[in-house]
Amino acid sequence: MGEWGVIAALTGRMPAGPLTSVGIGDDAAVIAAPSGSVVAAVDLLLEDRHFRRDWSSAYDIGVKAAARSLADIAAMGAVNTALLVALAVPGALAASWPLELADGLAAEAARAGAGIVGGDTARADSVLLSVTALGDLDGRRPVLRSGARPGDVIAVAGPLGRSAAGLALLSAGVADERPTSEALAGLIAAHRRPSPPYEAGPEAATLGATAMIDVSDGLLADLGHIADASGVALDVDSSSLVTAGPLSEAAAFLRSQKFDSSRTVPADSPPRTALEWVLTGGEDHSLVATFPASTQLPSRWRVIGQVRAAGGSVAGVAGVTVDGVPHAGPAGWQHFR
Amino acid sequence: MGEWGVIAALTGRMPAGPLTSVGIGDDAAVIAAPSGSVVAAVDLLLEDRHFRRDWSSAYDIGVKAAARSLADIAAMGAVNTALLVALAVPGALAASWPLELADGLAAEAARAGAGIVGGDTARADSVLLSVTALGDLDGRRPVLRSGARPGDVIAVAGPLGRSAAGLALLSAGVADERPTSEALAGLIAAHRRPSPPYEAGPEAATLGATAMIDVSDGLLADLGHIADASGVALDVDSSSLVTAGPLSEAAAFLRSQKFDSSRTVPADSPPRTALEWVLTGGEDHSLVATFPASTQLPSRWRVIGQVRAAGGSVAGVAGVTVDGVPHAGPAGWQHFR
Repeated sequence: MGEWGVIAALTGRMPAGPLTSVGIGDDAAVIAAPSGSVVAAVDLLLEDRHFRRDWSSAYDIGVKAAARSLADIAAMGAVNTALLVALAVPGALAASWPLELADGLAAEAARAGAGIVGGDTARADSVLLSVTALGDLDGRRPVLRSGARPGDVIAVAGPLGRSAAGLALLSAGVADERPTSEALAGLIAAHRRPSPPYEAGPEAATLGATAMIDVSDGLLADLGHIADASGVALDVDSSSLVTAGPLSEAAAFLRSQKFDSSRTVPADSPPRTALEWVLTGGEDHSLVATFPASTQLPSRWRVIGQVRAAGGSVAGVAGVTVDGVPHAGPAGWQHFR
Repeated sequence: MGEWGVIAALTGRMPAGPLTSVGIGDDAAVIAAPSGSVVAAVDLLLEDRHFRRDWSSAYDIGVKAAARSLADIAAMGAVNTALLVALAVPGALAASWPLELADGLAAEAARAGAGIVGGDTARADSVLLSVTALGDLDGRRPVLRSGARPGDVIAVAGPLGRSAAGLALLSAGVADERPTSEALAGLIAAHRRPSPPYEAGPEAATLGATAMIDVSDGLLADLGHIADASGVALDVDSSSLVTAGPLSEAAAFLRSQKFDSSRTVPADSPPRTALEWVLTGGEDHSLVATFPASTQLPSRWRVIGQVRAAGGSVAGVAGVTVDGVPHAGPAGWQHFR
């Protein structure tokens, strides 16, 4: 199957979506932008930095690549309409690999209501993907990082720390072929296939969210972006964070685990306690937003802290505290350094 | 300069353009789509496949990466509005390198009327770039590959074969530090910094072009895409193609050149005659379109052939002939295989 054959096969697996009038196959795609503007974001995913082929299937990587960009659109309060995918793969890779990747991309795009409308392919020594997501605001104002005001509450939709816990389990050599429990298997799955709550983004915009971001780098790191852009201080109430259940089970499992003597945990491996996963783990792509304190929040939004006036000099991430004090250690961590 | 410093420096060098309401710095950008739809295309550029750092400066590579995607939007009859750029560079690269690349991207985007509205950065072993271009049709219908009809004329705006000739000169070891003539230096510059006639795209749409494509793979290869999508045959009149002047001079120079004995020209090196460059050379990103024969074409559109009914079985690129006969050899060639 030559390059054109692969493209044809890929195209057949990636529906263009309801708003697309010209999809893959011409010089460019044409997608409706009903409200007269388009929301756009791009993310790059590189093998051995953002994913490992021995830890994630092609389908998983497709889901993850799509989710990463789709969540950026949701975090503006917009509805996803389309993805464009640039993909390079090694020549030695099985022909089925890019097709399974396409299935993962298409499935996650469909979950967000988007089609796949364009792409480019090339050969490279390792897999690399660039996913551009487009969305529509349907007349809403975009929710920026810069609108948080003292007195607002901080709320999150979607899980925190699950992807990080799953990565810690994978890093410790926990094979998915024989998961010790459904809970741990669920965390590994959350790392492989994040499941952002896309519809919570437009919902937050409609509710009057003053600022919003998706948790890609870690809760504290991403709140730091809001604090910085809004010129405010953000305080997280640790008692509001969910650490019981699977996260605690995973941390206990890792403490008790007898390691294979041939395997060493690298010094820069991710943290291994439930609270650290929640505070600093990235890649769940949940949405965190600030709202006026009087906002009646639907149940999927959990209040986890308050916005305060900026001021004082604290160590750690500028403007972000946990229970009123700066958090010790890094606020987030980056994939596989 | 850490990652954030580089991003801040890059952002400062890449203006967002007049239609952008939210540019780089939030989860996603927001760009006006005045006519209620958006045109979008993505292209991937990889070091040593699409460019070589010893043959092109960072600025050159920025221009080329931008031009490649901007030309796709023009080839739909649309006006460019915005670029999103995903970039990975080796850690050992000088900090000035990505900044000069940004200058090249910004300069070419500005030439097309577009801003740079989003991006992502990472580290990788070699330079890779993915550029997504967005555009607006301003109420025009998109010009697809599929609308060519028997009786139409084929016309081209912009040069053909110049990038290929420049690459042949570089491949043969012609150092730009001491160009033998302005003509040859101009061809090398055309390879490094293609200059597509963006405004000819919307112009062609307004004139009633029935099909259009940008010449990225080579004239015959790209006409093959139109023939295939339109279900027609295309015949190019070789006497209408410009081979005199710099292209002929370059071919003569290469024939006469004494090669450095330490250098061998690889067997798969690009062709080295003027007509072959024009027929099969890619990356000039000129626009080729079909028009009803009665169309009054402005002078920048040069008629180079005719559309005929499909039929008969010919060798070579399906449906494309030169002076009525199939072209011997490949219809296009791909960068640095």
